[in-house]
Amino acid sequence: MKRTAFLPLAVAIVAGIVASMARASGQADGEAAPIYGVKIPAGYRDWKLIAADNLLIEGKVNQLRAQLGNDIAIKAFKEGKLPFPDGAIIAAIHWTRVPSEDNDKVLAGPFPGAQSFVAGSPVNVQFMVKDSKKYAATGGWGFADFKDGKPGDKALHETCFPCHAPAKDRDYVFTHYAP
Amino acid sequence: MKRTAFLPLAVAIVAGIVASMARASGQADGEAAPIYGVKIPAGYRDWKLIAADNLLIEGKVNQLRAQLGNDIAIKAFKEGKLPFPDGAIIAAIHWTRVPSEDNDKVLAGPFPGAQSFVAGSPVNVQFMVKDSKKYAATGGWGFADFKDGKPGDKALHETCFPCHAPAKDRDYVFTHYAP
Repeated sequence: MKRTAFLPLAVAIVAGIVASMARASGQADGEAAPIYGVKIPAGYRDWKLIAADNLLIEGKVNQLRAQLGNDIAIKAFKEGKLPFPDGAIIAAIHWTRVPSEDNDKVLAGPFPGAQSFVAGSPVNVQFMVKDSKKYAATGGWGFADFKDGKPGDKALHETCFPCHAPAKDRDYVFTHYAP
Repeated sequence: MKRTAFLPLAVAIVAGIVASMARASGQADGEAAPIYGVKIPAGYRDWKLIAADNLLIEGKVNQLRAQLGNDIAIKAFKEGKLPFPDGAIIAAIHWTRVPSEDNDKVLAGPFPGAQSFVAGSPVNVQFMVKDSKKYAATGGWGFADFKDGKPGDKALHETCFPCHAPAKDRDYVFTHYAP
């Protein structure tokens, strides 16, 4: 009796997990980026953190950035394995870097002169999708850049691979895993 | 026949998931921080990203930082629910912010004057653990600060709550979720 009562629950739980894994690794609906046909992967914002960085271009760009990876990418980063295996996806989220008056007020007591910069509005999200056959001509990576959920144009996507090419010895990936 | 063959597998899978969830939410072995008794939570580096920031104190501190949350914390952040429910844990990882010559060389072509700052060596990791009864005297939060896996001293931990107190209307949490 106990076994038969348990079975439907177990089936439901396993089915739920399988469905959830499929969603997590699947690609969302939405417009595909030109050239590479990459769409925004479902659930990417909940992927694990690879690293964070900050890009400054005087008078033009002032960004806080975070790179997230799906499970295949994270495993490869942690094991230091190159090239990345097929199925690895890296997401790079870029926000404006803005001063936080709230934080600065609090910090001024214990840390005079402290300046806190936080993530402001989202600027864009970029993806690198590893598929060594499909993207053989571009180091095995498909590239995509989205702003407010919409992909950039073809001219923008033509700049992705040439820019990543100098990182060939790191399988075209700039980001190092931050422990 | 199919049902009975499936049962042991389903039981094994569910048992494995339960064990893995226990590990993910459990606390690791290791020295506990003074005052609050908080240990480094197992698997925190794989938690989901809340936000990233950058702290500068001229001549003293230059850090890139990321805040991660366990599932309870992330759910509360996404739903904008305050106060955070018991069981929520926020991890704040602090790295030195260092210029990346490699990145700057690559960026110099398309973006003259670009300066890339990346996460260098880890400085410390801080945790806020919500337990409204256990930590009633400090806004329901237990605080902990670890360097190389070792907790800071009592004097350091005495500074945590007073510093977070001005954020009382945000349940003592400075970080906002970065979409």
